Amino acid sequence: MPDSSPRSAILLIFCPDRSGLVAAVTDFIARSNGNILHLDQHVDAQENVFFMRVEWDLARFSIAPEHIGTQFGLVADRFQMTWQLHFSSHVPRMAIFVSKESHCLYDILYRYQAGEWQVEIPLIISNHPDLGSVAEKFGIPYRVFPITAETKAAQEQQQIELLKETSVDLIVLARYMQILSEHFVSQYPNRIINIHHSFLPAFAGAKPYHRAHGRGVKIIGASSHYVTAELDAGPIIEQDVVRVNHRDSVDDLIRKGKDVEKLVLSRAVRYHLQRQVLVYNNKTVIFG
Amino acid sequence: MPDSSPRSAILLIFCPDRSGLVAAVTDFIARSNGNILHLDQHVDAQENVFFMRVEWDLARFSIAPEHIGTQFGLVADRFQMTWQLHFSSHVPRMAIFVSKESHCLYDILYRYQAGEWQVEIPLIISNHPDLGSVAEKFGIPYRVFPITAETKAAQEQQQIELLKETSVDLIVLARYMQILSEHFVSQYPNRIINIHHSFLPAFAGAKPYHRAHGRGVKIIGASSHYVTAELDAGPIIEQDVVRVNHRDSVDDLIRKGKDVEKLVLSRAVRYHLQRQVLVYNNKTVIFG
Amino acid sequence: MPDSSPRSAILLIFCPDRSGLVAAVTDFIARSNGNILHLDQHVDAQENVFFMRVEWDLARFSIAPEHIGTQFGLVADRFQMTWQLHFSSHVPRMAIFVSKESHCLYDILYRYQAGEWQVEIPLIISNHPDLGSVAEKFGIPYRVFPITAETKAAQEQQQIELLKETSVDLIVLARYMQILSEHFVSQYPNRIINIHHSFLPAFAGAKPYHRAHGRGVKIIGASSHYVTAELDAGPIIEQDVVRVNHRDSVDDLIRKGKDVEKLVLSRAVRYHLQRQVLVYNNKTVIFG
Amino acid sequence: MPDSSPRSAILLIFCPDRSGLVAAVTDFIARSNGNILHLDQHVDAQENVFFMRVEWDLARFSIAPEHIGTQFGLVADRFQMTWQLHFSSHVPRMAIFVSKESHCLYDILYRYQAGEWQVEIPLIISNHPDLGSVAEKFGIPYRVFPITAETKAAQEQQQIELLKETSVDLIVLARYMQILSEHFVSQYPNRIINIHHSFLPAFAGAKPYHRAHGRGVKIIGASSHYVTAELDAGPIIEQDVVRVNHRDSVDDLIRKGKDVEKLVLSRAVRYHLQRQVLVYNNKTVIFG
Repeated sequence: MPDSSPRSAILLIFCPDRSGLVAAVTDFIARSNGNILHLDQHVDAQENVFFMRVEWDLARFSIAPEHIGTQFGLVADRFQMTWQLHFSSHVPRMAIFVSKESHCLYDILYRYQAGEWQVEIPLIISNHPDLGSVAEKFGIPYRVFPITAETKAAQEQQQIELLKETSVDLIVLARYMQILSEHFVSQYPNRIINIHHSFLPAFAGAKPYHRAHGRGVKIIGASSHYVTAELDAGPIIEQDVVRVNHRDSVDDLIRKGKDVEKLVLSRAVRYHLQRQVLVYNNKTVIFG
Repeated sequence: MPDSSPRSAILLIFCPDRSGLVAAVTDFIARSNGNILHLDQHVDAQENVFFMRVEWDLARFSIAPEHIGTQFGLVADRFQMTWQLHFSSHVPRMAIFVSKESHCLYDILYRYQAGEWQVEIPLIISNHPDLGSVAEKFGIPYRVFPITAETKAAQEQQQIELLKETSVDLIVLARYMQILSEHFVSQYPNRIINIHHSFLPAFAGAKPYHRAHGRGVKIIGASSHYVTAELDAGPIIEQDVVRVNHRDSVDDLIRKGKDVEKLVLSRAVRYHLQRQVLVYNNKTVIFG
Repeated sequence: MPDSSPRSAILLIFCPDRSGLVAAVTDFIARSNGNILHLDQHVDAQENVFFMRVEWDLARFSIAPEHIGTQFGLVADRFQMTWQLHFSSHVPRMAIFVSKESHCLYDILYRYQAGEWQVEIPLIISNHPDLGSVAEKFGIPYRVFPITAETKAAQEQQQIELLKETSVDLIVLARYMQILSEHFVSQYPNRIINIHHSFLPAFAGAKPYHRAHGRGVKIIGASSHYVTAELDAGPIIEQDVVRVNHRDSVDDLIRKGKDVEKLVLSRAVRYHLQRQVLVYNNKTVIFG
Repeated sequence: MPDSSPRSAILLIFCPDRSGLVAAVTDFIARSNGNILHLDQHVDAQENVFFMRVEWDLARFSIAPEHIGTQFGLVADRFQMTWQLHFSSHVPRMAIFVSKESHCLYDILYRYQAGEWQVEIPLIISNHPDLGSVAEKFGIPYRVFPITAETKAAQEQQQIELLKETSVDLIVLARYMQILSEHFVSQYPNRIINIHHSFLPAFAGAKPYHRAHGRGVKIIGASSHYVTAELDAGPIIEQDVVRVNHRDSVDDLIRKGKDVEKLVLSRAVRYHLQRQVLVYNNKTVIFG
C-alpha cells in the first residue's frame, strides 16, 4: 500500500508465455483510464517465460491504489502470473553494511544527500568502528557488531532484529568483508546487494586483485549481485571493467578497481530502487 | 506485402501520446490470435510523442498478411498514428557505395556471405575502379560512375535509375567520398546510411582524423547516420569510440579509427534491417 | 627544492630531437649512482620534438638534492632542453573552485581524505555559499566570492591574493560556473585544471547536455583540460564517455554525465600531481 | 640477420634490476651514432626485474647490422641480460590455423591485403575443408589435415614439417578448434597466438558463450594469449569486452562476441609483429 497518494504504479510480472498477455495487462490499465508511462517486455524463448514491467500514471486512474492489487489479481490468476505491485510514492529504506573501505560508502552517501535516489538510509552497520566518522558526517546512525567465529551467529541475530525494527527493505553490502550466513540471507531474498571486486565468475572469493595481477589480465572488473547462499554466485545485476597494463601493481589494480566498484554498486542499487529488476533462474532481467 | 508466407509481422508506430495506445494495439493483435514476440515502447515526455515497435507471431494469426494493413489502419486512424508494417519474410535489397577504402566493404561482405544479416546485396557502386576486385571476390556486380563537378548531376541520375531497376531498398555509404545531392537524398529518405569517421558533432566535414590529432583529443570515434540534405547532420543511429594517446600519429588514428568505423556502420545497418529504428525530429529511437 | 629528504627525483624534458638525448640524461643519472625507477620517452616525428620523463631513486645518488638542478643544467644547455625538476617529497597545494554542484567536490575530497593522492587542500573557493557544509564536513576552509559583471575583476584580484597567501600550486575547477579572466589564467599557466561536461571539441560552451540531447547523440562525455584564455580550448588531459539512448531525458544525461565528469577530473588531477603531464603545442603528453 | 638493408633495429631486454641499465644500453647506441626512435622501460618492483624495448635509426649507425648482436652481447653480459635483436627489414612469416568459423580469418586477410601489417602469410592450415574458398579468394595455399584421436600425433608431425619447410615464424590460431599437443607447442614457444572466446580466466575451455549465458553475465569478452601446454592458461596478450543483456540469446552472444574476438586477435598479432611483447612469469609486458 502506498505511503501517500502515489503518482504512478509499477507492475513486475512473469509467467508462462502465451498469446494475449500484454493485451490483458494493458487492457486492465486502459479500461480504468491509466496512461502507460513505460512498458518493457521480454520473452525468454528458450524457457518459454514471459517478463514484463509496466508503469502507469494514476492521475485519472479510477481504481483506488489500495484496490489495484485485488483487481489485478483477477487478471493475474487467469494467466498464472507471479507479480509485484509497487507505488512511486513508496520510499524504500536501505541499510548499508561496511567494513573498513570507504569508497563505496562515500559514493552512496553522496548520491543520498544529493537526492539522486528515492530512498531513506536509516542505518549503517559495520564489523569495525573505523567508518563511524563518515557516518557521522552525514548524520546517519552507525552500529558496530564485531564478528568472530564464535560470536557470528549471535551477532547476526542482533543485526536482523535491528534491521526489522528499523523496517529496512534493502541491504547493501558496500565492501562488507564478512560472509553472511544462509540464515541471514534467507531473511532478505533478492534484497541484499553485494559488490564483488572482480569480473565474476572470474576470481570469486578472496583477494581477487592479487589473483588478477598474478594471472596477468589486461582488464579488471567489478560485479554487483544479489546475495544467495553460495558465495559470489547470486544473480548478477551489473558489471563493468577498466583496462590495466603491466605497469600496474596490485595496489594500482586496487585503486583503479575502486572507481569501478562504486559505479557498479550504485548502478545496481538504482536499478533495484527503480523497480527495474526481476530475478529468474538465478539471472536478472533489467528492464529499460 | 510479404515475399512469401511470413512468420512474423512488425509494426513501427508513433503518434501523440494518450492513454490506451498500447492496449489498442495489443488488443488488435490478441483478438486475432497473434502472439507478441517483442514489444518496446517509449514516450518522449517533453514532446508528448508515443513510440512503439511490436513484433508478433503470425502462425495462428487469423488475419491474412495482405489484409493486416487495412485492418490495422482502422485502429491507427482513431489515434492519428503514423505507422509502418513489415514482414519477417521480406528480404531487403541493399546497395553499397564505396570509393577507395576497403575496410567497411570487407566487413559488410563478410557478414553478408556468413549469413549474419537477412539482406540481398545486388550492387556495389563506386566513383573509382579500385575496389572492383573485392566485389569480384564475392561475386557482386560493381559499377563505376566517375564523378566530376560537371558530370555529377548526370551520373547521379544514372545511379538513381540503376538503383530503381535493381529494386534497392537501402543504400549504405561505406566510406563513399562524394556528397550526395539534395535531389538524390530526397529519393531515399531515411534509407541512406552513412559512416562518418568522427564522433559527431565533433569534426563534421573533411579530414576529421587530422583535426582530432591537431586538437589533441584522447578519444576518437565514428558515427553512422541517415543522410539528409545537410552534411553530417542527419539522425545519428550509432556511435562508438576508441582511446588514443600522444604516441598516435594521424596514421595511427586512421588505422584505429577504421576498426571503429566498420563496427559502427555494421551495427547501424543491422538495426535498420531488423526494423529497430524510428526517426523523429532528426533523432532516432532504437528499439530493443 | 625538496620539502624534506626526498626519495626520488623526476625530470620532465622537451627539446629538438637529435641522437644521444636519452644517453646523455641517463648517463648523468647513472654516473652519480641514481637508479632509474621509470623512464618514458616520446618523439613527435612530425614536429621533430623529443619528450621525456625520468624518475630515479635518490637513496645512493651522490649529488645533493639542492644541487641536482645546477648540475643537470649543464647537460640541458648542451641540448637546448626545456626542463622541470620535481622531488617526490614535495606535497603540492591545491585549491578547489566550486559553484553549486557537489559531485566532483565529493569525489576529490573522498580521495583526499583516503590518502589516494599526495596533496594538500588548504582552500575551497566558491561564488555561492551552497557547498560550505560539504567543506565543513571535511574541515577545509571555504571562502565565498560572489561574482557579478561589475565585481568580477575585483573579486578575482582578491582570489588571486588569497591563493598566493595560501601558497597554492594547482587550481581545480570542479564545476565552477564562472569563466576566469585572461589575467587570472595568466597567473597559473598549465596549473588550472577544468572539467567540461562534454566530449570536447563537441559542445564547448554552455549547456552541453541540452545540446547533446537535441542532437540525438548516442554517447556523451567529459573532458578535463588546462585552462587557457580561449574558452574550453586548452590542452586536453583526459576524456571519457558513457553510452546513452533515446530513453534518456536531459536530466538522465546530466545524471549519467556526472559519474563521468568526476572520474575524468580526478584522473587528470592525478596525472598532474604525479608529474606525468607535459604541455606542448596546446596538446598534452601523458607519460606512463 | 636482416633480410635487406634495415632502417631500424629493436632490442628487447630483461635482466635483474640495478642502476645504470638504461644508461649502458643507450650509451651503446649513442656512441655509434644511433638515434633512438622509441624507448619504453619498466621495472617490476616486486620481482626486481628490469624490462626494456628500444628502437633506433640505423641510417648513420656505425656498426654494421650483422655485427650489432656481437657487439651488444658484450654489454649484455655485464648485466646478465636476456635479449632479442630484431630488424625493421625482417618480414615475419605467419601461418593461420582455422576450423569452420571465418570471422577472424577474414579480418586477418583484410588487414594482410590492405598492407596494414608487415607480414607474409604463406599458408593456411585447417582440420576441415570449409574455408578453402576464403583462402582461394586471397590466393593463399590452404592445406587440410583432418584430425581424429588416432591420427592426431601423425597429422601434427606433418603440420610441423610443413611449417618448417615454409619457414613460418609465427602461428595464429584463428578459432582453430583443436588442442595442440605439448610437443607441437614446444616447437614454437611464445610464437603461437590463440584467441579464446571468453574473458579469461572466466570460462576457459569449451562452450564459453553457453556458460556465460547460463551464468547471466552482463559483459562478455575475448582473450588472445600465447599457447602453452596448459589449456587457455598461457600469457595473455590482449583482452576486450562487449556489453550484453537479458534479451541476448546464446546466438546473440556468439554474434556479438565474434566482433570482439577478431579485434582482440588482430591487436595481439600486431603487438607481436611490431616486437612490442616480452613474456615473463607467464605474463606479458606490452611496450608502448
